[in-house]
Parts: sequence; C-alpha cells; structure tokens
Amino acid sequence: MTAEKTGLHSPVVDTARSPHARLRPVAVSRVALDGEFWGPRCERVATDSLPAQWAQLARTGRLDNFRRVTGVVKLPHQGLVFDDSDLYKWIEAASWCLSRRPDARLERLVGEGIALVEAAQQADGYVSTLYAVERAAERWTDLRDNHELYCAGHLIQAAVAHRRATGSDRLLRVARRFADLVCETFGPAGSGRRPGVDGHQEVELALIELYRETGESRYLEQARHFVEARGHGLLAGGRWGREYFQDHVPFRELDRMTGHAVRALYYNAGVTDLYLETGDASLLETLSRLWTRMVARQSYVSGGLGARHDGESFGKDYELPNAQAYTETCAAVGCIMWCHRMLAATGEARFADVLEWTLFNGLLPGWSLGGTEYFYVNPLEDDGGHRRQPWYTCSCCPPNVARTIASLPGYVYSTRGEDAIFVHLYAQGTARLELPGGRIAGITQRTRYPWSGDVELEIDAEGELVLHLRIPGWCEAGAASLHVNEAAEPLTLAPGSYVGLRRTWHPGDRVRLHLSMPVRFQESHPAVLENTGRVAITRGPLLHCVEGVDHAGVDLREVEVAPRQGLAEDWRPELLGGVMVLRGKARERLPGERWTGRLYRPYQGGQAPSGRDVALTAVPYFAWQNRTPGPMQVWLRASDGT
Amino acid sequence: MTAEKTGLHSPVVDTARSPHARLRPVAVSRVALDGEFWGPRCERVATDSLPAQWAQLARTGRLDNFRRVTGVVKLPHQGLVFDDSDLYKWIEAASWCLSRRPDARLERLVGEGIALVEAAQQADGYVSTLYAVERAAERWTDLRDNHELYCAGHLIQAAVAHRRATGSDRLLRVARRFADLVCETFGPAGSGRRPGVDGHQEVELALIELYRETGESRYLEQARHFVEARGHGLLAGGRWGREYFQDHVPFRELDRMTGHAVRALYYNAGVTDLYLETGDASLLETLSRLWTRMVARQSYVSGGLGARHDGESFGKDYELPNAQAYTETCAAVGCIMWCHRMLAATGEARFADVLEWTLFNGLLPGWSLGGTEYFYVNPLEDDGGHRRQPWYTCSCCPPNVARTIASLPGYVYSTRGEDAIFVHLYAQGTARLELPGGRIAGITQRTRYPWSGDVELEIDAEGELVLHLRIPGWCEAGAASLHVNEAAEPLTLAPGSYVGLRRTWHPGDRVRLHLSMPVRFQESHPAVLENTGRVAITRGPLLHCVEGVDHAGVDLREVEVAPRQGLAEDWRPELLGGVMVLRGKARERLPGERWTGRLYRPYQGGQAPSGRDVALTAVPYFAWQNRTPGPMQVWLRASDGT
Repeated sequence: MTAEKTGLHSPVVDTARSPHARLRPVAVSRVALDGEFWGPRCERVATDSLPAQWAQLARTGRLDNFRRVTGVVKLPHQGLVFDDSDLYKWIEAASWCLSRRPDARLERLVGEGIALVEAAQQADGYVSTLYAVERAAERWTDLRDNHELYCAGHLIQAAVAHRRATGSDRLLRVARRFADLVCETFGPAGSGRRPGVDGHQEVELALIELYRETGESRYLEQARHFVEARGHGLLAGGRWGREYFQDHVPFRELDRMTGHAVRALYYNAGVTDLYLETGDASLLETLSRLWTRMVARQSYVSGGLGARHDGESFGKDYELPNAQAYTETCAAVGCIMWCHRMLAATGEARFADVLEWTLFNGLLPGWSLGGTEYFYVNPLEDDGGHRRQPWYTCSCCPPNVARTIASLPGYVYSTRGEDAIFVHLYAQGTARLELPGGRIAGITQRTRYPWSGDVELEIDAEGELVLHLRIPGWCEAGAASLHVNEAAEPLTLAPGSYVGLRRTWHPGDRVRLHLSMPVRFQESHPAVLENTGRVAITRGPLLHCVEGVDHAGVDLREVEVAPRQGLAEDWRPELLGGVMVLRGKARERLPGERWTGRLYRPYQGGQAPSGRDVALTAVPYFAWQNRTPGPMQVWLRASDGT
Repeated sequence: MTAEKTGLHSPVVDTARSPHARLRPVAVSRVALDGEFWGPRCERVATDSLPAQWAQLARTGRLDNFRRVTGVVKLPHQGLVFDDSDLYKWIEAASWCLSRRPDARLERLVGEGIALVEAAQQADGYVSTLYAVERAAERWTDLRDNHELYCAGHLIQAAVAHRRATGSDRLLRVARRFADLVCETFGPAGSGRRPGVDGHQEVELALIELYRETGESRYLEQARHFVEARGHGLLAGGRWGREYFQDHVPFRELDRMTGHAVRALYYNAGVTDLYLETGDASLLETLSRLWTRMVARQSYVSGGLGARHDGESFGKDYELPNAQAYTETCAAVGCIMWCHRMLAATGEARFADVLEWTLFNGLLPGWSLGGTEYFYVNPLEDDGGHRRQPWYTCSCCPPNVARTIASLPGYVYSTRGEDAIFVHLYAQGTARLELPGGRIAGITQRTRYPWSGDVELEIDAEGELVLHLRIPGWCEAGAASLHVNEAAEPLTLAPGSYVGLRRTWHPGDRVRLHLSMPVRFQESHPAVLENTGRVAITRGPLLHCVEGVDHAGVDLREVEVAPRQGLAEDWRPELLGGVMVLRGKARERLPGERWTGRLYRPYQGGQAPSGRDVALTAVPYFAWQNRTPGPMQVWLRASDGT
C-alpha cells in the first residue's frame, strides 16, 4: 500500500504547521517523477543503490555492531565511531522509496534494520553500538569526537521519515525514548543537567522534526538549547580548533561559513528549522548573511562547498582550488537541506536556484550512473586518478545520496495559503497536491528538462489558484516565455524569481514555459586566481566539463576555447544514459620543449605559444568518470579569437 | 676554547672519509661569517633564538618530561609524543654556536640539557620520556605514530654535533648506548630481532653519522637495514595510507616525491648518506631521479616543498597553490640537508643552487628578523592573517631553523683531493681550510651578497690549488665575469656550474667575481594553472614579494606589473634590517561593481577592466610579515604593456 493511497502526510521536512514558514510542503508520496532523467534515477536508488548499500552495511560489520550489543555476535566493535548513522540514513532512504512504490525486499530489509536498532536500545532509551558492552560506562564522555548525539539525530530523522513514509510508529518509539533521554541528560547551566553539544551537528534539526512529528515541545526546546549552547567553547581543542565545530562564537556572531563544511551546513539547516518554529529574526538574519556570503565567495561553479581537504572545511573567501577541491558529496546534501528550509522560510527563488544547481552539479556527480558507486570528494579538475567507490571506511556519502534522491519528489512543489502552488523544480511527472484548505490540484509536467527548457504543465484543478513558476536564475533576462493554453503571458520579472499566474483554472488547462538554454561560458571573480583567463561551460542548469576519453592525446589543461565561436548541441541518446554533448573547435596550446625540466623561467611576455586545432567535446559534469578513466577539466583557457 | 683553536674537526656532515664522496667537508669552526647579512644572523641565533627557545622548552614541560623520568617532578607527560626531539635539536644548535664562540650561558644550558638526557636514560640505554614510568612497558608498540626511533635519531645527531663542536663525549656516550639498543632490537627477518621502521625517518641518517663519528660499522648496517625495510608495508593504515611514510614501495621503486614532505626529505638525506658510504649506484640513481622531478614539478618558486596541508605532504605534479601552500619550514631544512649530501656525492652545482635558493627563500622566511618567531607554514600569498609564532604545540621548526643557521658556516666550502677548494656560497667572512694533505688555505670573502653580486676573495695560500667558484644557476649566461688580481679570466661555462681556477697562488691574491643581479620576472610552467598570466619577481638569489603595508588601499591580487618596464633598485638600510627594495609603476585593476554579490558571470571577453596607477614596492620574501601585518603576494598579474 503506497502512502498516496493511504493518504499519509509525508513531507521531507514538515513545515505544514510551522508558524514562520512562508511555504508549505508537499508530501513525497503525492509526486511521481517519471521522465527520462529522474524516472530511472528514482528507480535505481531503490533497485540498485539501496540493496548494494545494505550488503556493504552487512559486509563491514555495521549490522554486526548492533548484534553485538544484544550478544548475538561476539565481535569487537568494528569501524568508525559514527557508523551507526549509516544504517539510520539507509533506513531513511529506503523508507522514502517505500512511500512511492511497494518493494517486498526493501520492506523486509527495513524491518530487519529497525529490529536491530530496537534490540540494541538500552532500558533507559540509549542507543549506540560504540558505547555498549565493555564501554557502556563511557557514555557521553567524548561528545566532541565520538558522535553520540550526531547518531541520535540520524536515528531520529530516520524514524520520522519512516513514520511519514510508511505510517509505522515502530522506529519512532525507539527514537522518542532516546530523544527523551537526551532531553533529560543535557541542559543549560542551572538546569541540573549536563552541559555539552555534539562535535557534529545533526541532532538539532532532527529534534525539531521530531517535535513536528509528535507535537512534543520539549524536543524543540532541546534543539534550541543545543543551538544556543554552541559557540561557547564546549568543544575546545582538537587539531583544527573550535572553528572546526562552529563553536568559536555563538551562532548570531558568525559572519562567514567556516570549519567543517557538513557540520556547518547541518547546523544552519537546524537553525533554519528553529527559526521556522520560533520566528527569531536574529537567526534568519544571520542565516541570510551566511548564505549570501557563501554563494558569493565560497561556492564552486558546481555548487560544491567546502574547499579544503584539511579539516574537510570551508576555505577563505575565493579559496576554490580545482584539482584539490574537497567539496564532499555530503556537503551538497547539507546545502540542499539548508536551501530547502530557507526556501520554506522565505519563499525566495534564490534558494531554489542554488538547490537545483547543487542537485545537478554538486550532488549528482557523487553518484555513478550505474547507481552503486560514489564520490566522497568532487574535484573540478583531475589527472585521471579519481574514482567513485562502492563504499568508504567513512561512508557517510553513499546513504546521504540515497536519501536525497529517494525523497526528491518532495522538493518539487510547495503550497502557500489555500490557493497558491509553487513549482520549484522542473521534472516530468505527476502530482496531486493537497492545498491546506483541502482542495486537490493535479499537475502533470511534460518536459525533457534538464536537456530542454520546454516544460508543459497540465493543470487538473477547478477554480482560482495562483501557480508560481520559478524562472531560474541561470536564465538570461528575456530568454523565458510563457503561454497559458494558447495565450502568451507577459514575463516581466527578472530570472531568479517566481512568476505568479493567478487565474481560474479548468481541468486540462496547459501552461507552456520556455526557458532558453543556450551554451554559455562563465568566468569567475578575479579573486579566484586559479581561474584567471579561464571559462566554464554551462547549459541550462548543467555544468559541463571535458574528459580525456573524448580527447585522446590532448593535454586538457592546455585546451583553449573561443567563447565567441560557441559550441553546438548534440543529443547523444546512447552516451552516458543519454546526454546533451556540446561540441566545437578548440585549440591545444603546445608550450613545447622550452619547459623541459623547468618549472620557472624568465617571463617571455605575451607570446602565444604554438598550438593545434582539436575537436572539443563537453559532457555534463555530473556524468564524468563513468567511462574509461582519464583527466577531466571544468575550467578551460579562453581565447578571444573568433 | 673554540673548536678552531682546539683544532676540532667539526663538519656538519662528516664525509671526510666516505668512500663515495666527491667533496670533503670543511669544519664549521674553520669558517666565520661576519658580513652585514649573515654576521648578525649567526649572532642572533645564539643571543636571541636559542635562549628564547630554551625558555619555551622549560615553559611547555619538555624539560619536565625528562625530570619526571627520574622522579624529580611528579607530573604527567606533557605535549606531543616527539617533543623530546626539540631538546635534542636545541642541543645540536647550541653546540654549533659554541663551536664558533664562547658563551657561558649557552654552555651552562647545554650542560643542563645533557644532564637531563643522561639522567633519563634507562639501564639498557633506552631514552624516551613518553615510554617512561607508567608507560614503560609500551616501548616499541607504536613505531608508526609515536616517533621513538625518530627521537633516537635526533638524540644521536645532537650527540654527534656536540662531540664535533665541543670535543665532549658526554652526550655521545648516551647516544651510543641507545644506538646499541636499537641495533640489538631491530633487524631483518631471520635475525631474531624485531621487524619495524619508524613512521618518521631520521634515525637512518643519524646512525650513519654515528658510524662516521665512531667508526662502528654496526650503525651503518643498522641504517641500511632501516632503509631496506621500508617500503614493505610495515606501516599499514593511518589516515593517509602507506605513502605518507614512504612505505608504499621500496626506495628504489619510488618515482616521485610523495607523502609527508619532511619524512621524505629526511629519508632521502639518509639514503644519500648510505650511498656515500656504500656506493650503491641504484640508490644514487633513484635519488637523482626523485630530485630532478621534484625540482621540475613540485617546488615552489621560493624553493618551498610540500604543497599540501592535508598530510603535510607533497602534492601531485604542478600542484602548487599559493595561499594554501604548506611548505613547512622543516621541509626547507630537509631539502638543505639532502642537497648538501647530494652535493658531496656528486660535486654538481645544481644541488648547491637549490640549497642556496632554499636557504634564502624557503628557510629564512620561517625566521623573524628579531630571531625569536617562526613560521611553520610558508604561504606565497596571504590575506594578512598569517603570523610567525615564538613556539608551537608541534614545535619542530624553531629548533630546526636554529640548528641550520648555527651550522651554516659548514655549508660554505668543500674541498676535493689535496688541492681543490669549492666555494658554494658567497658570504662575507674568513675561512682557514685544511686540505686533506694537511695544507692550510685561507680565504677571505668580501661581499655584500645577497644584495650585490660582487665578491672579492682574498686567498691566503702558497702554491698550486684549484679554486672552484659556483656560477649560480640564477645567473644569466654572460652575466658573470671573473678577475684574478687584475687579469680577466674567461668564463665559458654556463651558469649552474663551477668555474675552476687552477693556478699557483700567492698570499694576497685576489679573485673578483661579478655576478650581475638585474631584477627579473619569472613565469611558471603553464601547468601551474594558478599562476597563469602571473610573474614573480627575483633579483640574484632572492625572491621578492609585495606587502600590504607598502600598498595601502590596494588589492594586491589585482596589481598588474609590466615586466617590460622593469623595476628600480633602492637600497634601504633602515628597513627590515637593511634590504634592497624594488620599485616601479604598476596598475591596480578595478573589477568594479559588476561583481557585487557574484562569484560567476557570463564571460565578457578580454575586456580590460578599468584601473589606476599604483607605486609598487617589492621587498625580499624572506623579510615579509616583519612589519604591520597585511596581505602579501608573490605572484603578480603581468601585463605586456610598456
């Protein structure tokens, strides 16, 4: 029985009753994506990714860690201190899949996973396979490094998702008992409870979702306590200092994204949740400031975040190395989570713009086209050595990709008030939205997006409604047009905003949106020194790159494109699952023998080195490293030649 | 009583009897540097650096760690596992100072330090303050991470230096007993001894020096064993894998510098020592291959090595980020150690070239002009936040700088056979070299080097000798000239070689070398993408940079110099202890408002942004961050304008 049929309310983040949400969520189960792009991907996560990940959970001892708590297996604890969270994220992902389609195998595995967690829960509600058996007495002794509350957060998030997606309270009961223990254990000075915050944020947003799911305000209060307690030096020391944990200053004093990227992004997602419930304007102000600066100074052209390998952290302003980009796949997930909440809080299209860009170019590259291999790190230039792997010792990314893709239908639409619908993402499929007043509106999107910017939306509703369509920020002014049935609608707003169509609808009305998708060359702010004189190629919402496999014998670092000449589109249905390839003439500079054995030489002025013509083939960046491994380059030298 | 007066043989590295050395060392005590550049620095290390470092050793518990072994203090072990080595390096540095000039205070402190080490030695010869008292049973249990043999190596090196510099056997007795224990403990399979190599190389080169000092061949054999045992997976695991410890392949299979930079460089220095004693050609071949590739692909224009913060490691080819350069000061020390040995092994000037360049531009920046603050990390671009510190939690660099400067006189000259003298470094001062046959040759250098390329060498010798003068690789062809007394000598060799003057000398003969030092602009190999369209400024052996303090209100990243216009020299005796400043006109690009809030935008072609004239002031890079802190930039945009 799928959730739609049971009428379950299954939003990704439930801001349906949040007092300070501008937009209301649409249940995952209400939206089906079935087009050529997202359709197979939504399938693949259930049929390929999650079964393979379960096998990895089993193979690497993550499931046995739970079994040893109950004495079923007699093995030492295996793996890293936060490995429990991989099972929780897997359950979350699988639950979203189950909300969309029945799957007996997945349902059985989810049941097995939940049974492991139930059995491992202590009498007082505590769950952790690390602090079990011989280490039971060490509970809460290393909040900075050992991730107990982080794992608690993922357990809670999984339980909430499982309840929303399937209607079952089973894991939620476990999560509530653990959450109650957390609430009884940690509190502000004078409360008689312990001080302390987790080194890795996650429990904050989970507790707020648990509050939303249960109505129990103590969870909200506990989340607020954890947010307010951070920034006061509870996490002193460590290799990278307090900034790594965002514990160097209280939240409202942060002026830039700093420290471990995933922690920072989960933190901000949680604080946005706190704003959505409390309306504390100083939080939203800080969030907005941080987001704006991050986008203007710390984001890769892929949307990737967290430039540094060292500390898996945000770099300084404009510190965006390409070959050494860290840009953890989980940071893309964190960015999507944060943007999604900011969108709910503000209704501003800029958050949907970054969400979409990060989805296509920050997250998707982390997932192989086959669905079973993942990047942890996402460079924008590579010598051919970078590979996706089926699993990692620290394997946060694979289940994080899975839960995002599995819940993607929940990101496509929102509603506002009793009569407004927002379309954030363009993706072929059908939706039956329930508006707060109880009206049902059906929307069928027909589109080849992201390959084409033509989207037809067929509306199945009667009466007055406002349909808000996002004109993406990647669109150039004047490059979008809109028709309702056969009549053109004026489009006066700048790209990066929602155009609102207020009218009386009749079943079968058709809206046709055209977003022109020319090939474009992007340059970066001059302070990104590495990109001086270079361009990146984009088309619509997709970043492109060049790969060695398409350019045998060519040194990609020396390839020079002439933006004025442009590139031609070439739809290749057989390639990489079907991609739009961009082709054109380029030149390979041949620096020649003068450099043999030398790294530096006296400046020889603007002498153009000799070169030779090469045929350029640019593929979508998300699809790179799915063929014969080889070098890859996003930023190419630009010449002004015509 | 100084060593010269006592006739002590005090080479930095004693290759005097090494069968495969092409050059023989000159004792530190035989050379005095007294010019405006090195004179004050050689003083300062004794009068300022070492006393302040001793206070840090005391303040941070490093000395108390030794006292706790004997029960004199009752404190837990403090600091990092390898902190003992800081005292050893300090003793080494102080000993070299004592070889050059009497210093009652330093002598007392050295005695105090040695007494601490003596007292902490166990009955079987073992010394480590970490594995003492309550952890005594854990000896040798974590060779990968806990640095016991690394510390043993520094103890041995200090003891050897102390013996050479002062004639005292006191610390050497301690070191021999420890070395004997190491020899009894570790050995190849079948020897009945343990397997194992240290995670951080150092003991290899120290054991060979101990062999040279004592004639005891078991130490050489033990060093050979440690070299041959590495590369076979004894150091599995860890965050960065076996490459971090250069344990991924046997030495002869290495094809590039990889992993932790200081470990790799100490390793290679030790292997060069092994070659010098054994003549194993496969070692020299590998060393030469690694060195050549490192210089051609992995060296900063500063000579700095080890690009990555992550793992303090070498990057890939051409991975040379400027703001995020790691280039640990200790890596410059390691490079100097290695080059010094390669020079002894080959007599090739390229090793002296890199040694000199690294000394001025890789090591010296790590030491404040005041002599008491140090960089650990040496970026080539900074936003103004980078600071030298008097000490670090991991404080390997400060005593490493001190021991290098304190022994610098030993790097200036070598001899070959009974009649050849090599001048590697130009530095004002006097030397009385003892040639292997017993002849004494005096050389007095008069020069303002590195500010001027004019060097007068007055020879105090009688009879035939070959004087080899290095024509530095930084010199352009035809830009050097040479006179003996008043007669010009032809200079036909290319820069980067030694010109040999074979003649019958008479006391008072004067050699005048002129090395032209025009301001030069360097460009880097096009594969260093970050430096595209940029130049670095050099003059003679010095790299220059620009600092914010000289360019108020200017964004240094936007400064564009016109190499064709050149820069003018301006000697500023009052500035930064006396430096040559380079001045000229430049332009600051003003990218303007179009970038507000944006990081990427559609390419606008080669439109030159507006700009304004600015006065450029470039100071030597070694002197940066000795005034009001502010941004710093080595690589500047180049325009082809005239």
